[in-house]
Amino acid sequence: MRNVFISKKDYVKELLKIIRSTKNAQKLQDLLSDYHEKDIAEAITHLTKPERNTLYHMLDPHMIAEIFSYIDDVEPYLEELPLAQAAKVISYMDADDALDILDELSESKKNELVNHLDIDAKKDVQKLLSYEEDEIGSCMTNNFICIPNHLSVREAMSELIRQAGRHDNISTIYVVDDDEKFAGAIDLKDLIIARENDSLEDIISSSYPYVFEHDKISDCMEKIADYEEDSIPVLTPDGKLSGILTSTDIVELVEDAMGDDYAKLAGLTSEEDLKEPTLVSMKKRLPWLIVLLFLGIAVSSVVGMFESVVAVLPIVICFQSLVLDMAGNVGTQSLAVTIRVLMDEDLTAKKKVMLLFKEMKIGFLNGASLGIMALVILGIYIHLCKNYVWTSAFLISGCVGISLVVAMVISSLVGTIIPILFHKIHIDPAVASGPLITTINDLVAVITYYGLSLIFLIEIFHI
Amino acid sequence: MRNVFISKKDYVKELLKIIRSTKNAQKLQDLLSDYHEKDIAEAITHLTKPERNTLYHMLDPHMIAEIFSYIDDVEPYLEELPLAQAAKVISYMDADDALDILDELSESKKNELVNHLDIDAKKDVQKLLSYEEDEIGSCMTNNFICIPNHLSVREAMSELIRQAGRHDNISTIYVVDDDEKFAGAIDLKDLIIARENDSLEDIISSSYPYVFEHDKISDCMEKIADYEEDSIPVLTPDGKLSGILTSTDIVELVEDAMGDDYAKLAGLTSEEDLKEPTLVSMKKRLPWLIVLLFLGIAVSSVVGMFESVVAVLPIVICFQSLVLDMAGNVGTQSLAVTIRVLMDEDLTAKKKVMLLFKEMKIGFLNGASLGIMALVILGIYIHLCKNYVWTSAFLISGCVGISLVVAMVISSLVGTIIPILFHKIHIDPAVASGPLITTINDLVAVITYYGLSLIFLIEIFHI
Repeated sequence: MRNVFISKKDYVKELLKIIRSTKNAQKLQDLLSDYHEKDIAEAITHLTKPERNTLYHMLDPHMIAEIFSYIDDVEPYLEELPLAQAAKVISYMDADDALDILDELSESKKNELVNHLDIDAKKDVQKLLSYEEDEIGSCMTNNFICIPNHLSVREAMSELIRQAGRHDNISTIYVVDDDEKFAGAIDLKDLIIARENDSLEDIISSSYPYVFEHDKISDCMEKIADYEEDSIPVLTPDGKLSGILTSTDIVELVEDAMGDDYAKLAGLTSEEDLKEPTLVSMKKRLPWLIVLLFLGIAVSSVVGMFESVVAVLPIVICFQSLVLDMAGNVGTQSLAVTIRVLMDEDLTAKKKVMLLFKEMKIGFLNGASLGIMALVILGIYIHLCKNYVWTSAFLISGCVGISLVVAMVISSLVGTIIPILFHKIHIDPAVASGPLITTINDLVAVITYYGLSLIFLIEIFHI
Repeated sequence: MRNVFISKKDYVKELLKIIRSTKNAQKLQDLLSDYHEKDIAEAITHLTKPERNTLYHMLDPHMIAEIFSYIDDVEPYLEELPLAQAAKVISYMDADDALDILDELSESKKNELVNHLDIDAKKDVQKLLSYEEDEIGSCMTNNFICIPNHLSVREAMSELIRQAGRHDNISTIYVVDDDEKFAGAIDLKDLIIARENDSLEDIISSSYPYVFEHDKISDCMEKIADYEEDSIPVLTPDGKLSGILTSTDIVELVEDAMGDDYAKLAGLTSEEDLKEPTLVSMKKRLPWLIVLLFLGIAVSSVVGMFESVVAVLPIVICFQSLVLDMAGNVGTQSLAVTIRVLMDEDLTAKKKVMLLFKEMKIGFLNGASLGIMALVILGIYIHLCKNYVWTSAFLISGCVGISLVVAMVISSLVGTIIPILFHKIHIDPAVASGPLITTINDLVAVITYYGLSLIFLIEIFHI
């Protein structure tokens, strides 16, 4: 296969060569400035420890900070730095990036580092730490440009140039009024093409979207993403500008939310990665499995009630797994669709009923298609392989077919209605729905299938 | 619950009031310019058709284009415009947004509109149409600033101001050499804070990351997102600048990829939404269900081989669903983790073996925990409810317990190894793995459980 990312591979190789052969600090910094920090970060992970130590001495903390913010698992590299230098590096980072890194460290190491941070950085980090983890405030950054609303276009431009040295999120410029309250935003493009004697007022979007620092991330994430902006302002309850969310933050939030939903659908309590210790991963999975074990025991005791059917007609057990699996699959499909719909949109009661009917219709149509297939194929199979006469064979396969239709319609209904109910009472449907739906569907399938077999095959036709 | 998005709700109400009461076109445009296009788009969906018709007459096509690009399901609104105006609106959009909208229309309507587009817009759209749907080129935009590398800082700034009127993705400025080949990128911030007599060369990142227009989206999406840039350049095979990917495009790509993975894990061929007709949704789900039906029949025929066990000892069927369900759940967990790991990273052979061992260890530890629980709880249950003597009860529950351990270790192994194999032969593991893993795990669980019951309970202990 052609290498689709030639550029990146080459850059890292080039960088390794440059880092290993350049002995002059200034020259090295000049050479590195041509490359993207992410590529430098990757190159660093390929160096030996002594090589890295030499490199750390040649780079200033600001540059190390930029590079480190692109390393996924930065802890071991940070530990290679002396405490004072590590604290300096973290001080140069945006507070939210700094916090991400501090959270990876042990509690003692974290406190030690926080105490050595610059006063400003320490204040910023402590501010972010004061929010709950699920609040917007916890992932905002104070890296933004803010100007008062009474400036002229010319003054705004020089203020921008002055602040741009420290703050690099410049594509939207935030405006505050005399009381320091948020008064709107200026698209940098509009400022750049404005003439010097234009009024600044004309290019301010005074009704710009915003969020509050204590808003729940999950409640407003989709809406933020819909604005498709490079950044969204975060306000205090009294309307002052507290920070911003950048598009990078938004990408991360969307990824996290979807990754979590994905994990929950698969019965994990949250997303895992390869580096995690076995015991941590085990703990993420065991809770669901225990819940499922107990629910499974409940299903077992219902199956036990039909022992008499099996004792008379052992062949029916062959198709138990088929009916249960199909009901489970259909329920999972409905669950996945419903969760995504609930996440994307605020559904009116009417739309919920529509969704319910649609899912049941799909369940019926798919159930009918599969039921007929099962009737025909299993009928032939039972006759040929199990030596039943044709009529008995088709009566048995008919039981399977009818059970499939009934189980699939009910599974669709259950797979739709349960997440809607959980959503209504503000419980995350992705977490709570799975095991409940599986269990209800198993019960419905077992009762339908063995119930039909008992009445139809044993009591009516005496097969 | 406190309304977390007060701002937005109010903006839409304000906008409805403004739109309904303002009769002067110029004044309306001025008033609307204070609002975000997404809020205007939402307000428009709340207007009546005649109100919208009045509005369309008062806005210029450029503004309508910006607003329409924020409407999710824009087709009905576009149909309200006369063909010529609709074509004009689409001509003003970025080519990738225009294409998204055109793709929603019927083939005949689409061709009709494409023929009425401005020459430039038509060329741009046709260029994007020339790429395969899974190629980077199909979702890039030509809305970017591009300057030659021999300019001075001052000339670069005036060139930026000149181009910014038409192109609003200005935070990264792309640089080409005399042969029009991509030569690097300038961070707008660096250009703004540069002094007029600085050399432009100094602020160009000459080793800036890029992708090729024919690269597969799935192959480089994660890497692009890792660069955390506002945009990434897209090059032709000979190194010329063909377009850019913006961070909004990247968010969409990441969302789509994760949404598809999520859907595939749930046995859907791709993501669905509420508006889709029932039959379309049904077709997305039926293929998997048919595959699963056939695989289920295969499992059924294996269960059939153990009819003799059931005939002698009907109680064993009670716990079949338990063992199968648990094996299935564990397999799904391993599958979900493995797919995410494969998507995020390029695994070396060593890491793959590590992942395999880790999954098996987790499978064994969880299996052992659950096996012991099952042994104790089911032993008591069988003694009390099914009236078996204590030894027989615990022999039966022991069979379930051991089966759980064996089935869960093997399920973890299968749930890890199958997606790795599919990934290796370039088949999407999220699609192909699910049914195969379920079936293999069902077979393993059935054979282990009934096999153990046959040997252990019937042949050795003659319960």
